[in-house]
Amino acid sequence: MVQHWIRFLHLDTVRFGTLEGDKIRVFKGDMFDSPSRTDIAIALPEVTLLTPVVPGKVLAMWNNYHALGQKLGLAPPAEPLYLMKPANSYLAPGGTIRKPRVEAKVAFEGELAIVIGRRCSGVSVESAPDHIFGYTCANDVTVNEIIGRDPTFPQWVRAKGFDTFCPFGPMIATGLNPAMLVVRTILNGEVRQDYPVNDMVFSVAELVSKISQDMTLEPGDLLLCGTSIGVGSMRPGSTIAVEIDGIGTLSNRFE
Amino acid sequence: MVQHWIRFLHLDTVRFGTLEGDKIRVFKGDMFDSPSRTDIAIALPEVTLLTPVVPGKVLAMWNNYHALGQKLGLAPPAEPLYLMKPANSYLAPGGTIRKPRVEAKVAFEGELAIVIGRRCSGVSVESAPDHIFGYTCANDVTVNEIIGRDPTFPQWVRAKGFDTFCPFGPMIATGLNPAMLVVRTILNGEVRQDYPVNDMVFSVAELVSKISQDMTLEPGDLLLCGTSIGVGSMRPGSTIAVEIDGIGTLSNRFE
Repeated sequence: MVQHWIRFLHLDTVRFGTLEGDKIRVFKGDMFDSPSRTDIAIALPEVTLLTPVVPGKVLAMWNNYHALGQKLGLAPPAEPLYLMKPANSYLAPGGTIRKPRVEAKVAFEGELAIVIGRRCSGVSVESAPDHIFGYTCANDVTVNEIIGRDPTFPQWVRAKGFDTFCPFGPMIATGLNPAMLVVRTILNGEVRQDYPVNDMVFSVAELVSKISQDMTLEPGDLLLCGTSIGVGSMRPGSTIAVEIDGIGTLSNRFE
Repeated sequence: MVQHWIRFLHLDTVRFGTLEGDKIRVFKGDMFDSPSRTDIAIALPEVTLLTPVVPGKVLAMWNNYHALGQKLGLAPPAEPLYLMKPANSYLAPGGTIRKPRVEAKVAFEGELAIVIGRRCSGVSVESAPDHIFGYTCANDVTVNEIIGRDPTFPQWVRAKGFDTFCPFGPMIATGLNPAMLVVRTILNGEVRQDYPVNDMVFSVAELVSKISQDMTLEPGDLLLCGTSIGVGSMRPGSTIAVEIDGIGTLSNRFE
């Protein structure tokens, strides 16, 4: 059964729950460990959405789609290539992506994000799905000009780590087959990215398995699966949305 | 006045406090926001040391010492160059650095670490020290062979992000002048690194100021200041210590 989990602020209290029609069913306990359903239902307009989880870490893939790799003349990598996005970059659905102090173009990158559900270290590809809680939408916001500014050290973490540069949400969908999903990124109403998740170099199960050989993954950790063709920059005043049917639409302003 | 702050486990409870001779003076509240001194003193041998803070993020500098840059033929960078180390890499003083699953040499890098004390965004060099809580020792453990394995994407985060690859502690010294400090790294009793902090390309105040232009820094965040000459690899069974007079000695086994 597909469920949609959200985290939200209601009367100054942080809560979480699932969507039931136009209401939120409130749950208690640990979202990742047998949360208990309560009798409380809240109307969606009464809450402020938060990021659906507070990740301990966000790892973002690079060059993980065949179509974008081909366009850039890059061979498919032999292993997942990734960087990290810091906590100051996390941004809730509806939040405003802020122009950094540095004068530079700011690019959107619509992506599927994997939400880890169970601690895992050294898991096989076969058992990786058991450690995935669900999937959400993410925008891997980037200042591309910074990456190559120093010829001796590509500044991936900095270029993608500015405050507000990691919007994700609005909800986590569980019980989905990720291989069937399509990522669409819409800038001011215009579709700019529209690509199938099954074009990934490393599938979601392979990403979880391979990265768990290096690093223990914890409940709530996010793996951003990388982006494909159609990325571009945003002018201040833009609205940028990452839409994945079956999950939802992550919409943010850029100022 | 110089104080030494530690965090520890005592009778299954996490506590923090300052060193008073061979005792620990327990404090209550928030280490970074007017903690209150209690009447409780505990003998040092009765506790298990934890990492002195649980950082929200750890940023690690690259090429920030003139001596090492000269040896490697690198010009001093125009701006701080940094990567991130994930939470799974944090390791307490006395903890064991574990060989990763990948077959490769594991290197030590003894470093001074800055502990942020007050939230800061866009602070000047002059006001940066007001946002620093203190200083601790860190070991920026690295698998160097991984960094350049893919010619299109240097894997800095992965090479330095394996479980247990970021030991730090044992305590945070406050009220010190960092420019006077000397970092010594000792492998199995032999001094391998012995370098002055004042050889840094960017001083601690410059690092905090410059990085705070990009990312909001939070209390407990760590900036690892980079390493200098003398880094090397460890054989399983080694003991590696990072010693900074005025702070303390961070000692870990490698297995």
